[in-house]
Amino acid sequence: MEIAGSAPASGLVDTAAITPEELGLAARNHGMPLEALRYPITPVGLHYLLIHYDIPAMDPASFRLEVGGRVERPLRLSLDDLRARPQVTLPVTMECAGNGRARFSPRWISQPWLTEAVGTGEWTGTPLAPLLREAGMLDGAADVVFTGADRGVEGGVTQDYQRALTPAEAMGDDVLLAHALNGAPLPPQHGFPLRLVVPGWYGMTNVKWLARIDVVDEPFAGFQHTSGYRRFAADGTPGEPVTRMDPRSLMVPPGIPDFMTRERFVGPGPCRLEGRAWSGWAPVVRVEVSVDGGHAWAEAELDPPIGPRAWRGWSFLWEPSATGRHELCSRATDAAGNVQPVTADWNLKGYANTSVERIAVSVGDGPAPAHP
Amino acid sequence: MEIAGSAPASGLVDTAAITPEELGLAARNHGMPLEALRYPITPVGLHYLLIHYDIPAMDPASFRLEVGGRVERPLRLSLDDLRARPQVTLPVTMECAGNGRARFSPRWISQPWLTEAVGTGEWTGTPLAPLLREAGMLDGAADVVFTGADRGVEGGVTQDYQRALTPAEAMGDDVLLAHALNGAPLPPQHGFPLRLVVPGWYGMTNVKWLARIDVVDEPFAGFQHTSGYRRFAADGTPGEPVTRMDPRSLMVPPGIPDFMTRERFVGPGPCRLEGRAWSGWAPVVRVEVSVDGGHAWAEAELDPPIGPRAWRGWSFLWEPSATGRHELCSRATDAAGNVQPVTADWNLKGYANTSVERIAVSVGDGPAPAHP
Repeated sequence: MEIAGSAPASGLVDTAAITPEELGLAARNHGMPLEALRYPITPVGLHYLLIHYDIPAMDPASFRLEVGGRVERPLRLSLDDLRARPQVTLPVTMECAGNGRARFSPRWISQPWLTEAVGTGEWTGTPLAPLLREAGMLDGAADVVFTGADRGVEGGVTQDYQRALTPAEAMGDDVLLAHALNGAPLPPQHGFPLRLVVPGWYGMTNVKWLARIDVVDEPFAGFQHTSGYRRFAADGTPGEPVTRMDPRSLMVPPGIPDFMTRERFVGPGPCRLEGRAWSGWAPVVRVEVSVDGGHAWAEAELDPPIGPRAWRGWSFLWEPSATGRHELCSRATDAAGNVQPVTADWNLKGYANTSVERIAVSVGDGPAPAHP
Repeated sequence: MEIAGSAPASGLVDTAAITPEELGLAARNHGMPLEALRYPITPVGLHYLLIHYDIPAMDPASFRLEVGGRVERPLRLSLDDLRARPQVTLPVTMECAGNGRARFSPRWISQPWLTEAVGTGEWTGTPLAPLLREAGMLDGAADVVFTGADRGVEGGVTQDYQRALTPAEAMGDDVLLAHALNGAPLPPQHGFPLRLVVPGWYGMTNVKWLARIDVVDEPFAGFQHTSGYRRFAADGTPGEPVTRMDPRSLMVPPGIPDFMTRERFVGPGPCRLEGRAWSGWAPVVRVEVSVDGGHAWAEAELDPPIGPRAWRGWSFLWEPSATGRHELCSRATDAAGNVQPVTADWNLKGYANTSVERIAVSVGDGPAPAHP
């Protein structure tokens, strides 16, 4: 039997059950298994992946990046041109704006993320700002529009994937046109041959398969700015745009898992908890851990930073008070004073649900599980 | 709100809705987006991934493969020892035995695959047979047991992941101990530093994070042979083991997709369909295409083989008879006479559902979508 599309293809659902459309997305996109938090730089294939349409077929030899619109000198750059420019390598933590969507109730039907839509890549490319200076933005530039080579239909609108930044945002020091990830050419699924990397912003702004950059003199009002990536109210009123990543901390689930439920089992005795935390607004300066489901909190120890735009490692020695079931949580605070909420504010389309993760762990009194 | 575990953690469900447990698995494991069928060798990160427990932390320096049990000369081999032996590189198509599970009704609660649980890797490693000859299997060897370093709880049983082959199967010409994928060391998620590759078999036999090989004198009756990977009847009676991959063909979805429904849109005029087909029993010798939902079938053209153990490319020129909605299918036949069924036989735990894939395509009369 084929799955019948009995559920609405878009809209809200008020049940924990996942629709066939959401399954279709979950089967092709994927999160980062949380045990991969152990790697400071996420290995290729473990970094989260969200592809709106299809991965397009790209020919690196004929590829040209077009820079045009309201500029003095339009540019047309090959991959060799881009690689001949100054290069920067930067570890950047990137998260999907919809991370946590499936933990809201009711829930918007879209990619049903739990908490795993994150990863940290070491991106190599040329800074965007000097390239925009070379092109020369004309007076009255309102936005810089980035167009990917991926095309599809969304909300009834046929479109190329497009996102924009203001000129000031686009001229940011660390905005890159990246052609490499973790020291190798971009994999197809991460935007080969070229993508935009905007450190600190949610993933939707980091346009993959980047084909065009256009300076425009009206604020950009494309689908991904007006129909997506805003904190819509329940009645559909567009709210504030989703931009930078709100603070979040995640934990390497300790012990060994149950295959189906993912519940964890640890042996008796001290257990070192570890994880990583990030914020797109400012560096993470504090991580707290709760071993009783969020009632009491204690300070975790922070690892040295691995870079200004990457997550921060943390650890905490847990000495379980008793055998039986425990619920472990962590939460992050950044230098701008943003604190990860125990329960994030609901919004219609399910963005930025940074509610603290809860990991169920059973502590046994028998021999400790051998792994890890 | 956290998702409540209201559905049973195992067992059958008779609804298209996906349970929270299935979503937890779908978020960490992932299929190959079908447009990646365009690559003869699947790029890392697009190959399907199914991890029963966690990706274990492995130290390549201290890693040793133990070969023991009923052998004359137990072996203890470092990675350098294994890499110093003769090396073979082989493109191998690998598919999860549960591929298609979520298209059965009722459906067993487990990893809810649709059709994407496949990929073709170029695996490099040393053949297993000479190594077993060196160890010298003693008379009366019944099975060769492969133990991974991944540990967890499944069906209430705490276990290391284990699968076995008969001595004859283990001595097969093309069985490899692989340390590299697509020319680079194995990524963590594919078994770093060492995995078993058994060409033609479903994925569960290709043990990742391979730690031990033991020759035993009784037929192996571990969890993954008795409780999993058999064609159980509805009443739970264990049926035949699932071993080699049944024939299947898949298609690169033509045109451009709708983000949510994944329905496809193509412009008017001829449309070249292409895909890949495989069987673990014998080479694919025929692929047929239906453009009317499986009523009439026509021959596809086969590409030259890329290897004896890899999928076979095919193509078909479709000239849509009318605008509107069409349903595209393909099916494979192998040299042993196995034909992919339009509707595969149901079995309790949802293995080997090779029912033909159906791709809904709307043909427009306007300008053709620009991609691909």
